[in-house]
Amino acid sequence: EGAMWTAGARQPGLVLAALAALGLALEVLVARRRRPVREVLFFPSKPSCTEALLAEAASPDDAPVPCPCPLPRGDCAFSRLLRHLLSARRSLELCLFAFSSPQLGRAVRLLHRRGVRVRVVTDAQYMALKGSQIGLLRHAGIQVRHDQESGYMHHKFAIVDRKMLITGSLNWTTEAIQNNRENILIMEDAEYVQPFLEEFERIWEFYDPLKYMFF
Amino acid sequence: EGAMWTAGARQPGLVLAALAALGLALEVLVARRRRPVREVLFFPSKPSCTEALLAEAASPDDAPVPCPCPLPRGDCAFSRLLRHLLSARRSLELCLFAFSSPQLGRAVRLLHRRGVRVRVVTDAQYMALKGSQIGLLRHAGIQVRHDQESGYMHHKFAIVDRKMLITGSLNWTTEAIQNNRENILIMEDAEYVQPFLEEFERIWEFYDPLKYMFF
Repeated sequence: EGAMWTAGARQPGLVLAALAALGLALEVLVARRRRPVREVLFFPSKPSCTEALLAEAASPDDAPVPCPCPLPRGDCAFSRLLRHLLSARRSLELCLFAFSSPQLGRAVRLLHRRGVRVRVVTDAQYMALKGSQIGLLRHAGIQVRHDQESGYMHHKFAIVDRKMLITGSLNWTTEAIQNNRENILIMEDAEYVQPFLEEFERIWEFYDPLKYMFF
Repeated sequence: EGAMWTAGARQPGLVLAALAALGLALEVLVARRRRPVREVLFFPSKPSCTEALLAEAASPDDAPVPCPCPLPRGDCAFSRLLRHLLSARRSLELCLFAFSSPQLGRAVRLLHRRGVRVRVVTDAQYMALKGSQIGLLRHAGIQVRHDQESGYMHHKFAIVDRKMLITGSLNWTTEAIQNNRENILIMEDAEYVQPFLEEFERIWEFYDPLKYMFF
């Protein structure tokens, strides 16, 4: 029997305290490492200049060129959304009822050029509307699929690198971003992300153009 | 020194095992007690009979009267939404762009009659549309406020007893429930619920009819 356990026998409180401290330290370490993104954003978001964000994402090594536009810079709901989106390194799934924001369109094309695997599901009735970004995405070579049902494909979610979910009431239109009362959640809790990933794959397969029936 | 600690000194493994078991038991107890609701529901939801759910919520002491309608019973996304909503005991905040589902309208009026404090915020353009439940809610004595802005009040969230958030893409219309691809999250994580509570209070104050300007 070691000295420690003999000491423990004499002072059981010490052993308990040491064990508790060890447990706490481990818990703090694990919590710090795994702390998921958990953010709630509300809109409308004031018009703001996002050139710096987009330019930095496009060529991180270049010196920033200041944008001459008069819009305010700085943090706002929209810039935070854009920043999270631009953090994608491997994959991006988009499931969007309406997508006409030119800034978000640029961001998605930029990610595609950077080698991120982008897949888009959208609503057939809305994708042909004026200002839709869907045509530009397809021109850029991004895969897009759409519903062929009578109901709307009304989701508004994105999944970044299969681990961050962006979802809420916000359609990706400038109108909604700047004028509507909207919310989005940005979350990395697997319990929420996983079902959305599975739903995306289901919808993606269901909308495979080879299966379109043109009824 | 007690016999246990003397035994512990001779068999330290036993003490460790006992401590580990105690820790695990405590953890399970705490987790069970605090385990928050975390649910993701996808729509469309098949048409289903919700009479039993509504009748039970209206008069929990009465024997159930079987509904003669031919719709299937049982669990579905819509019945789960309804069940969570009907769990309200003290308060219900609704912030809804469109609200025309007769079943959800009945549920909200029922909660109001049961003494739950119901407050509704909605969109001015949409509340006057055919089939809107807003008029019926007001007739029942429920407080309703609406935006007076050019943008949409496009939120679709509910907060039950200030601790459960229901939010997503789903407007509370039969069309959306039965025909659209939609999602809702049902969550009790304070990190998500709290910002929505604060947003509701902000909007509620902002839409105070005493402050309407009729511009």
